[in-house]
Amino acid sequence: MKRIAVVTSGGDAPGMNACIRAVYRAGIYSGVEVYGIRRGYAGMIDGDMFKIDRRDVGNIIHLGGTILGTSRSEEFRTPEGRQKAADQLLDKEIDGLILIGGDGSFKGGNFLSEETGIPVIAIPGTIDNDIVGTDFSIGFDTAVNIALESIDRIRDTAISHGRLFFVEVMGHTSSFIAFEAGIAGGAAHLVLHDGHQEVEELCSHLQTLFTRGKHHAIVVVAEGDQPGCSFGIAKTVSSRIEMESRVCVLGHTQRGGSPTSRDRVLAAKLGVCAVNALIDGKGGMMVGEVMREVVFQPISEVVGKQRETDPRMAILSRILTGY
Amino acid sequence: MKRIAVVTSGGDAPGMNACIRAVYRAGIYSGVEVYGIRRGYAGMIDGDMFKIDRRDVGNIIHLGGTILGTSRSEEFRTPEGRQKAADQLLDKEIDGLILIGGDGSFKGGNFLSEETGIPVIAIPGTIDNDIVGTDFSIGFDTAVNIALESIDRIRDTAISHGRLFFVEVMGHTSSFIAFEAGIAGGAAHLVLHDGHQEVEELCSHLQTLFTRGKHHAIVVVAEGDQPGCSFGIAKTVSSRIEMESRVCVLGHTQRGGSPTSRDRVLAAKLGVCAVNALIDGKGGMMVGEVMREVVFQPISEVVGKQRETDPRMAILSRILTGY
Amino acid sequence: MKRIAVVTSGGDAPGMNACIRAVYRAGIYSGVEVYGIRRGYAGMIDGDMFKIDRRDVGNIIHLGGTILGTSRSEEFRTPEGRQKAADQLLDKEIDGLILIGGDGSFKGGNFLSEETGIPVIAIPGTIDNDIVGTDFSIGFDTAVNIALESIDRIRDTAISHGRLFFVEVMGHTSSFIAFEAGIAGGAAHLVLHDGHQEVEELCSHLQTLFTRGKHHAIVVVAEGDQPGCSFGIAKTVSSRIEMESRVCVLGHTQRGGSPTSRDRVLAAKLGVCAVNALIDGKGGMMVGEVMREVVFQPISEVVGKQRETDPRMAILSRILTGY
Amino acid sequence: MKRIAVVTSGGDAPGMNACIRAVYRAGIYSGVEVYGIRRGYAGMIDGDMFKIDRRDVGNIIHLGGTILGTSRSEEFRTPEGRQKAADQLLDKEIDGLILIGGDGSFKGGNFLSEETGIPVIAIPGTIDNDIVGTDFSIGFDTAVNIALESIDRIRDTAISHGRLFFVEVMGHTSSFIAFEAGIAGGAAHLVLHDGHQEVEELCSHLQTLFTRGKHHAIVVVAEGDQPGCSFGIAKTVSSRIEMESRVCVLGHTQRGGSPTSRDRVLAAKLGVCAVNALIDGKGGMMVGEVMREVVFQPISEVVGKQRETDPRMAILSRILTGY
Repeated sequence: MKRIAVVTSGGDAPGMNACIRAVYRAGIYSGVEVYGIRRGYAGMIDGDMFKIDRRDVGNIIHLGGTILGTSRSEEFRTPEGRQKAADQLLDKEIDGLILIGGDGSFKGGNFLSEETGIPVIAIPGTIDNDIVGTDFSIGFDTAVNIALESIDRIRDTAISHGRLFFVEVMGHTSSFIAFEAGIAGGAAHLVLHDGHQEVEELCSHLQTLFTRGKHHAIVVVAEGDQPGCSFGIAKTVSSRIEMESRVCVLGHTQRGGSPTSRDRVLAAKLGVCAVNALIDGKGGMMVGEVMREVVFQPISEVVGKQRETDPRMAILSRILTGY
Repeated sequence: MKRIAVVTSGGDAPGMNACIRAVYRAGIYSGVEVYGIRRGYAGMIDGDMFKIDRRDVGNIIHLGGTILGTSRSEEFRTPEGRQKAADQLLDKEIDGLILIGGDGSFKGGNFLSEETGIPVIAIPGTIDNDIVGTDFSIGFDTAVNIALESIDRIRDTAISHGRLFFVEVMGHTSSFIAFEAGIAGGAAHLVLHDGHQEVEELCSHLQTLFTRGKHHAIVVVAEGDQPGCSFGIAKTVSSRIEMESRVCVLGHTQRGGSPTSRDRVLAAKLGVCAVNALIDGKGGMMVGEVMREVVFQPISEVVGKQRETDPRMAILSRILTGY
Repeated sequence: MKRIAVVTSGGDAPGMNACIRAVYRAGIYSGVEVYGIRRGYAGMIDGDMFKIDRRDVGNIIHLGGTILGTSRSEEFRTPEGRQKAADQLLDKEIDGLILIGGDGSFKGGNFLSEETGIPVIAIPGTIDNDIVGTDFSIGFDTAVNIALESIDRIRDTAISHGRLFFVEVMGHTSSFIAFEAGIAGGAAHLVLHDGHQEVEELCSHLQTLFTRGKHHAIVVVAEGDQPGCSFGIAKTVSSRIEMESRVCVLGHTQRGGSPTSRDRVLAAKLGVCAVNALIDGKGGMMVGEVMREVVFQPISEVVGKQRETDPRMAILSRILTGY
Repeated sequence: MKRIAVVTSGGDAPGMNACIRAVYRAGIYSGVEVYGIRRGYAGMIDGDMFKIDRRDVGNIIHLGGTILGTSRSEEFRTPEGRQKAADQLLDKEIDGLILIGGDGSFKGGNFLSEETGIPVIAIPGTIDNDIVGTDFSIGFDTAVNIALESIDRIRDTAISHGRLFFVEVMGHTSSFIAFEAGIAGGAAHLVLHDGHQEVEELCSHLQTLFTRGKHHAIVVVAEGDQPGCSFGIAKTVSSRIEMESRVCVLGHTQRGGSPTSRDRVLAAKLGVCAVNALIDGKGGMMVGEVMREVVFQPISEVVGKQRETDPRMAILSRILTGY
């Protein structure tokens, strides 16, 4: 293993830069050259890559986004596109690839690995935290804390006015951000995906709370596969319980910003272990952290699966919002 | 002047608590009792008020919102409602009123003062910064910095993906937040109110930028009287310049949060001067800060007016977004 | 179990309020009254306690510090003091105690439990993270993130000037904050406790870095049992490698501030489980989180022990600072 | 005016990057090339400069520090050093210089302008805010807000423990940061420079407060010309009023970090006006903002002077800390 490359793909996540830096440093530490591929798989197909230099990764550990850029590439979904990408890697004599991204990117990376034999180590980097095979993905902790900060701000105005707020958080079809930010933010209720039956429960819960003397409430809504869904929910609830409400869709603010310590340390750990795994001859694997231990699993076994939230979070949430 | 009351009315703004604290402390300093009225004019009509104690204003200087609560009261818009409110004040032997709020609240406060003779000093507290007679309203600086923080986060993801973002900021029909946050956030363009002709200019400006090699852009949109207007603008622009875009409406997150130093110091200054003004026999006046000097103006002369933005901000914005 | 009490003792830690709120809400959920004891063990001895009401824990989830207050009590170190405290609890018909604090407080709580038979459940709350029997203590994640934020700021000026900085972080004799904040902050070196031999290594490491072209460096120093120790280290290093340096002791800023999501969720979990444990008849136990599972251990087995840092953190740190 | 250069000198201040970006963009807007000089006057003497490109100033508006680097140069204090620097500028055919820095840097810049005839426009950039001829220097607002954030955190722990804290803020021999952060942070007392007589007053003031029932207090100390002076003050006060205390020296954390909106807008304004001034043939002038208007004054009239704080701040502080 003389030369490896690192690529960030799909949605960006805070901590990706800390991970790129760790990959570079772990490479140098082991005498391996590290190339950076720009603009995700699109850049890989175009051969848009460069040898990373110390200065490229200087002063980036704290920056959100990814200095390499990212994209979603249609062409890479085809075997021809992946072959072009592989040719570019071979042309640069790159012996292994580290891929930082989410489920969609992992699928492409796995095909690349299987079709061309290029060893690929995948690192979970997505704010949604929906990758199986790891307890946490890079970017999740930061996204939760940003959502939480927004909820704290909204609480100030919710209390001052005695208002009902619906705060929609990201997380795609998973509810990890909603659970953490909702519990940490003292939400009165969490709305998860399969919405309909929940609205009944929500209305009755809110009515109980307001009857008991509560004057304001924040309901945290998981976006699900329909970002903006909270407007409809708010309308239904407001009309049923006859109380005005406000909606706040936090949106892309949750994607950016300086990564938290947890995300940076996770990025460092996974980045270093990914490099070592390539050097050790591994390929087609995802590196994750489970029960605080670094673990490897075949990418094929983690892609396309829906990670479940811990059922104990639902119980915890019920107890804490019970009053 | 033996006993005064303080009320927060209309939309809450960060720094209101620092102002309440200053009013209380300035009162104590001058031997005047200070009452707090809960829930704005609605609470005043109900006589929902209490003698403020040292502990009530302890550890609140840094909190967003208002510990007194606030509301918009229909009843106070009628002479009968205002008479009820005045009766409550007289009943508690309150000799003067300090009102922290925005234009709508000032109107009501001015009627109260004129109709009942109760001396009222108004303090501008609104994130919109649209009150004439003061360079800054309490809460504006905080709202701008929160909007800016969100823009900074969005920039991370905008750059990483090479994307076009529309970020809608608050400010009602005024553009103060949009100007400050847009210039400070390095926006590629600002969309102010009278939208239509601007969209043409915006499209052509963005096309010039992208032709020159820029890969991403953030357009800051002032909400105007139609919050959510940025969705329509984004759709029009995206279809015309054939580039995908994302929208982020910052919403009520801009209302809450810990006030900045500037907002707290302004709140302290205006709170202290308002108390001294009541003691000096003033009434029916708004206290503001103009050119860094504390000034008083009749409330009747500031209400119902649209404060204009400094035309030099538009020039500055044009120069800075020119490339 | 009809009535329980909660006390915060020793150094305060962000997230204690979120924990008090969770204890209260879990109590209500199970039909148990919850009393709050003011000023730690000192307040317990004085009988300074009150029945917690919904409003007492409203809008506190995001606040640093502890609304109950805390202290270090000499009197409680004596059997007589503890008996007085127990009498106060019995007088109020309190059937169980939840104690949020660190090692020193746990010792006292354990004596109380053993001597008087009052069931005590201890919850680890200390920014130092030095309690055995739990992977994380409440407050640690927040302290690390505050330290990190400061390091990020110092990096700006360190790079601009090409300077060497020593940043001393809290953590008492443990190095958890130093490890996390150092790795996350991109420190060039970490100085842990048994200082002397390290200084040699540090000087040689820094010289290597500067020879290779690095212009600035941040060294993170664990305070150990001598807060302020970094001044001496800086002096020695500066004179040996002939390079000016600056010192920044982060101090008590690391103790306060709004808790992170991680700390609030941990506080919620442990608070709820502590209440349930009392109801289930447990006593003399600490509730912690190990490998993401809630676990209980006898307080007697966790007190007085020094929790070790994970040796893999040292390896990770060496790889990442190797260049 | 075909080519100008920009240099940052002396202590770095948040907002310098926003100013460099504004200088570059204003240059492009007017068809003037802009060079960046690295490492302050030291880099100028070495000819360490480069033509700024769009990408150099992309995504820097929100970064603390200065991408150009800065330094304090002994050689530039000599006429020979300045002549070398001027030769470098002439060699690159640079027709004018924009200097961002503080009083010390202005002196050097003024000598350069007077001795060599190179037009120099100075922009005040220092967190100390001690430059006469401008109401605000770039970086001051950010430094105040960082100090304030730290004070807010310390308040959490001060209240929880009922403790006396001394918080030392930067500002060199000026007290601007101390005044703003002290008033905004709800300090119980401010200690300014000429210390001795104040300590008497401080002790008596604190004793009054504690007698009245206050349990904690934060005293904000201006560092003056002896950083670390608060340790001595704390010791004296603690022994006189027989109350334990803690000291926190905020130090260089106040220098870095993302600039506030106010600092970025000020940086934008002054940067643009400085470029226009050079184009208009001005030289030897400082551009500042007074009473919200951009003003120019001869550098010779602003250097070496001590800017006074507004006496009304002292009165305001006395009223607010009176209880």
